[in-house]
Amino acid sequence: MSAWVALVHHPVLDRAGDVITTAVTNLDVHDIARSARTYDVAGYFVVTPIEAQRRLVERILSHWRDGSGARRVPERTEALARCEVVDTVDDAIAAIEERAGQAPSLIATTARSGRPMASYGEVAASIAQRPGLILFGTGHGLAPGVLDRVDHVLKPIQPDASYNHLSVRAAAAITLDRLFGATD
Amino acid sequence: MSAWVALVHHPVLDRAGDVITTAVTNLDVHDIARSARTYDVAGYFVVTPIEAQRRLVERILSHWRDGSGARRVPERTEALARCEVVDTVDDAIAAIEERAGQAPSLIATTARSGRPMASYGEVAASIAQRPGLILFGTGHGLAPGVLDRVDHVLKPIQPDASYNHLSVRAAAAITLDRLFGATD
Repeated sequence: MSAWVALVHHPVLDRAGDVITTAVTNLDVHDIARSARTYDVAGYFVVTPIEAQRRLVERILSHWRDGSGARRVPERTEALARCEVVDTVDDAIAAIEERAGQAPSLIATTARSGRPMASYGEVAASIAQRPGLILFGTGHGLAPGVLDRVDHVLKPIQPDASYNHLSVRAAAAITLDRLFGATD
Repeated sequence: MSAWVALVHHPVLDRAGDVITTAVTNLDVHDIARSARTYDVAGYFVVTPIEAQRRLVERILSHWRDGSGARRVPERTEALARCEVVDTVDDAIAAIEERAGQAPSLIATTARSGRPMASYGEVAASIAQRPGLILFGTGHGLAPGVLDRVDHVLKPIQPDASYNHLSVRAAAAITLDRLFGATD
């Protein structure tokens, strides 16, 4: 299987449904890198169009890859080795196409329904056949401009829960576990 | 089912295997509260013997329950309503016994093996019969003094992974999903 993940800071929605760019959160970079490495995801793209934010992520990566963090906590180095920062979702797609020799299918996660949904088993089977890029939206989720382009929208994690506000770190961990995790 | 979770800051191990007390991380309080609420866990105990750290958590809880945070992000209020801070694991057990009328079974999670392990299905079946307290260790995991007392040790999340360093936030989310999550 050949899966990639992307944490998308633009275009995403705010509480009111407007398209915004969210700020990068340091712990998102770390947690999702560690989860991605645990499930042997090929690469993790942090997507933000803001140059200062990309420089911030590069500084975090450099601290843990080459700086004092690498000596102190080597398992962070290993997790962050597969993390990179790009400008747009299309840049992530282009990077995967170059490495995998074919464009990835796009997979979206959403806490809201209203679109045809794929099960985790269906998406895992798809990724076993063709590279897949799983998109996680920050803020209040991916904007329609991205959702309209994807090949699969995964079912909400807990469709019948009365509360549906997992952190993106938790949602990413659960999604990777459902797609690629060891069975009971 | 009647499940509780506890995030244990003492007694836990450091990298060298010594018993330490870790510092509370703000985002652990939030993320695990949101995951616990999503899976309808009855309560979330943040366990630390350090009074200044307990006051810090109380301040976080108060900001989101009654302060400006509650007006700005009401879904945080709902998640944190089930969160409380206690001195020791025994205080959490006593609080559950008082509310549930029966002492909970203790369930530990660990990235290391070496003890008899229960499957997620077995532990979910146990919690359906009797209240259960699921203990998550910070640092490098729960100390033997706690592990020796538990009724069930859950299998490692990815026993065959070459990398086993999920964040405690991610491990808690995945564990709750495996125990109580919707099926595919």
